[in-house]
Amino acid sequence: MTGKLTIVGTGPGNPDQTTPEAVNAIAASHVFFGYGPYLDRLTLRDDQRRVASDNREELARAKDALMTAAWGEQVCVVSGGDPGVFAMAAAVCEAIEDGPPAWRELELSIVPGVTAMLAVAARAGAPLGHDFCAISLSDNLKPWTVIEQRLRAVATAGLVIALYNPISKARPWQLGSAFSILREVLPWTTPVIFGRAAGRPDEAISVVSLADADPAKADMATCVVIGSPETRVIERPNQAPLVYSPRSLGAPK
Amino acid sequence: MTGKLTIVGTGPGNPDQTTPEAVNAIAASHVFFGYGPYLDRLTLRDDQRRVASDNREELARAKDALMTAAWGEQVCVVSGGDPGVFAMAAAVCEAIEDGPPAWRELELSIVPGVTAMLAVAARAGAPLGHDFCAISLSDNLKPWTVIEQRLRAVATAGLVIALYNPISKARPWQLGSAFSILREVLPWTTPVIFGRAAGRPDEAISVVSLADADPAKADMATCVVIGSPETRVIERPNQAPLVYSPRSLGAPK
Repeated sequence: MTGKLTIVGTGPGNPDQTTPEAVNAIAASHVFFGYGPYLDRLTLRDDQRRVASDNREELARAKDALMTAAWGEQVCVVSGGDPGVFAMAAAVCEAIEDGPPAWRELELSIVPGVTAMLAVAARAGAPLGHDFCAISLSDNLKPWTVIEQRLRAVATAGLVIALYNPISKARPWQLGSAFSILREVLPWTTPVIFGRAAGRPDEAISVVSLADADPAKADMATCVVIGSPETRVIERPNQAPLVYSPRSLGAPK
Repeated sequence: MTGKLTIVGTGPGNPDQTTPEAVNAIAASHVFFGYGPYLDRLTLRDDQRRVASDNREELARAKDALMTAAWGEQVCVVSGGDPGVFAMAAAVCEAIEDGPPAWRELELSIVPGVTAMLAVAARAGAPLGHDFCAISLSDNLKPWTVIEQRLRAVATAGLVIALYNPISKARPWQLGSAFSILREVLPWTTPVIFGRAAGRPDEAISVVSLADADPAKADMATCVVIGSPETRVIERPNQAPLVYSPRSLGAPK
């Protein structure tokens, strides 16, 4: 049997937001590699095996998965959200580039999913309705000075900003520093959305102004979305406010 | 009966990439508003009614949908991809903000989907594996000078760029102009992905260098992804190359 490697995005964590393509890819695989909590979301058969690893061991996990596929197994690498957004698809590509030539001949497929910022945006309104960007605040893999430059550049250019990996025990100060930088560039009234576990039972979405944005509101399961100067908040009776970025810029309202 | 408005993203156009949440929301709705080709993808029952409109009539469509929901109907506004990314969710929010107070009291829900750049990225490798942005090239709703400034800012800052609405009959020169601007900032060897109809039977994905990027390769169904200076191409025997943006920046390889 020829091995195959599929990298699957299971979406935000609510089974209703996992695509049939992802479900079918999981059913067709026999060995599963991933961060434990993502593997825990799968319901596997007796003939399916799981290999859990820590979330800071992405490259080692990618190599193990490629090696297993090269032995002839049907292998699945599992990501939450979309595997191409700050997740396992890039780690597998890195491992392929640096690995043995046989890894380039493996059948590889990538199954996209609903990434966190889309799930958070859907619960808040339409904050990503115009130009936007996604930036990881993790400075494990890039210097903090680069993150600072990028935040200033995109905020000045008027893009909405989705922050992935905003905070963790090992990176406690970066989100607060990011808010400080953004307060130098953006109006302090700019809406900020803390979107935690969007679509899951423990979902918590809150909207505050940039002036009041408190890093302590975020954890590893939070995607933080910071509006542009155009982003607006619509108050509603008996419902959460809607946050949206208009489709047009500079046009008279 | 109380009216309800649901804004649904059906994903890239392959039914296997539509979430169960979207399928269920469609089954629960009675009147469907959308761009004709998106409505054509739905299989509706006899008791479900469709109201197709042109793709440049988003605000009028949003108002019609809100009015219909306010009459007590179960209304669905259909977007391809994700409704929050350059699509109907922002148009509905605009209409609510400017509309009668009753529209703020309607039950509104937004169902996210796999947006085009994620589907294209999955077919190409992991080009969005690090910081990236999504920019609409449509200058119907914002001045071209703003688009130019944003392209320069994000390319200089090192973000991968996904271009939505790259070209149309009414906007024939903008994509070529965008490539010219990016050639001033980025290495001409930067990979460019033309991702047309990703996931659908008529899918066509091609990878060229920024030097060779020809706007004629794109149409309205294309999402164009331009790499950052870090983005790499892995050649493979008998398979399309993999394009990916490494997770780390500035680290020795």
